[in-house]
Amino acid sequence: MKIVRTIKQLRRLIQTAKQRGKTIGFVPTMGALHKGHVLLMRRCRKENDLAVVSIFVNPKQFGPKEDFKHYPRNKQKDISLAKRENVDIIFYPSVDEIYPSRYCSYIDVGHLTKGLCGKFRPGHFRGVATVVGKLLNIVTPGTLYLGQKDAQQCVIIQQMIRDLNWDTKVKIIPTVREADGLAMSSRNQYLTDRQRQEAPVLYQSLRLAKQHISEGKRQAKTICAMIRRFVQGKTSGAIQYIECVDAQTLTPLRVLKGSVLIALAVWFGETRLIDNIRIDV
Amino acid sequence: MKIVRTIKQLRRLIQTAKQRGKTIGFVPTMGALHKGHVLLMRRCRKENDLAVVSIFVNPKQFGPKEDFKHYPRNKQKDISLAKRENVDIIFYPSVDEIYPSRYCSYIDVGHLTKGLCGKFRPGHFRGVATVVGKLLNIVTPGTLYLGQKDAQQCVIIQQMIRDLNWDTKVKIIPTVREADGLAMSSRNQYLTDRQRQEAPVLYQSLRLAKQHISEGKRQAKTICAMIRRFVQGKTSGAIQYIECVDAQTLTPLRVLKGSVLIALAVWFGETRLIDNIRIDV
Repeated sequence: MKIVRTIKQLRRLIQTAKQRGKTIGFVPTMGALHKGHVLLMRRCRKENDLAVVSIFVNPKQFGPKEDFKHYPRNKQKDISLAKRENVDIIFYPSVDEIYPSRYCSYIDVGHLTKGLCGKFRPGHFRGVATVVGKLLNIVTPGTLYLGQKDAQQCVIIQQMIRDLNWDTKVKIIPTVREADGLAMSSRNQYLTDRQRQEAPVLYQSLRLAKQHISEGKRQAKTICAMIRRFVQGKTSGAIQYIECVDAQTLTPLRVLKGSVLIALAVWFGETRLIDNIRIDV
Repeated sequence: MKIVRTIKQLRRLIQTAKQRGKTIGFVPTMGALHKGHVLLMRRCRKENDLAVVSIFVNPKQFGPKEDFKHYPRNKQKDISLAKRENVDIIFYPSVDEIYPSRYCSYIDVGHLTKGLCGKFRPGHFRGVATVVGKLLNIVTPGTLYLGQKDAQQCVIIQQMIRDLNWDTKVKIIPTVREADGLAMSSRNQYLTDRQRQEAPVLYQSLRLAKQHISEGKRQAKTICAMIRRFVQGKTSGAIQYIECVDAQTLTPLRVLKGSVLIALAVWFGETRLIDNIRIDV
């Protein structure tokens, strides 16, 4: 496994691989790798000749009051984990390598970035889209692997790739969960023991919603209220949002129909957790 | 010469060329080709194995009150002109091919788009950057050819390519002029005879500015005032702006120093003409 710190060096390796007709798979991450990332790497490894993983804590996707400085970084553990998954290249650039002086270009994926998490994290998805656009140009992958846990991010990146015509397929990999249902996230390690015990409530509430829908409930308001009551009854977590939206367009739904995404964000102290499920109604 | 209307078909041709190790040069245009475009095509033809020209009047770079509907279109003449220059592929997509339904992604090149023409054409350079980004992803050229007449556009596209890491070189080709100095432009054909006679004043004023600078004048204010007086004294044209800026950063200058861009825009009736010169001070 090669650990590459510069764009120039990475481009050389990619070019050589392409000249030999190799297919390239790519998993962009912010490091602090967990089992969710492992699944992405495995799929990438299995389906491509060259498996590239980037580790870059992207400052442009953190708000001024968010956890950029304290976001977990664990280079050695990440590297050994990627090695174990037979990744070919880790791209591990510095912030200056990605955002040199006089940097000023951004990609904006319009209304898709305004709702759900975007409403509470202005500029977040602009930062995400921009860094992924850059990485697509650097890595030029045939296939990009993303995790369903970041549902809005998945929709935005797919739309961006379609709109701006990158020649890259996107594969969305299901959320990996702890035994008690908590979605894997690098931020879970921020949780106190008490918070960790309460955190599975996100997924429990989503499963309950699914059950209600399977029993015939169709009003988004009713479903959201039910989730709210459930989360509030069981935890100290402060709900940021609960929404039922169209899974493709992210348009808020009044009546659940078609491919539905139910997503929520809950604060546990200083830690913000998100989760979601997709349901075909 | 192949005339290609779909992205899919173009990608296939490009891929085949790349597999054979061919280099790709690209000239993006809005058609209504003139001698300025011819020079871009010649350089592109000479320096690359595959010469690709796009003809697309990009609605996203026109304001609601601008001349999108009336912008000159002359498919047959453009095609025969490109043929004569031995272009390999003309990409001639429909608006729906470039902007399908639910399109919502845009590229913004920050402060570079705010001054000069950008001040009077809000959204124009966002439209330009977006369509060029898309075309870069579709054509994947090794070299992109742009004309110096659109000086701000050149700076913006270069910055965008650097920032977002497209692996494409940019070559800026000098402005081609009529015998009397008027910069070639598809919009020149809008001019009445009277306006056409007056239009060379733009370049005359820039040359006069250059002379003043060579004689030691360094105050931007003085130079701009001189250009203003000259244009107003000689024509019925209404000056939109005259500016002296840093040629790389487009920052307005008080004192001329380093690589300087002097640019202006003048309305002749309904027709807006622009011109510029670069001077090393």
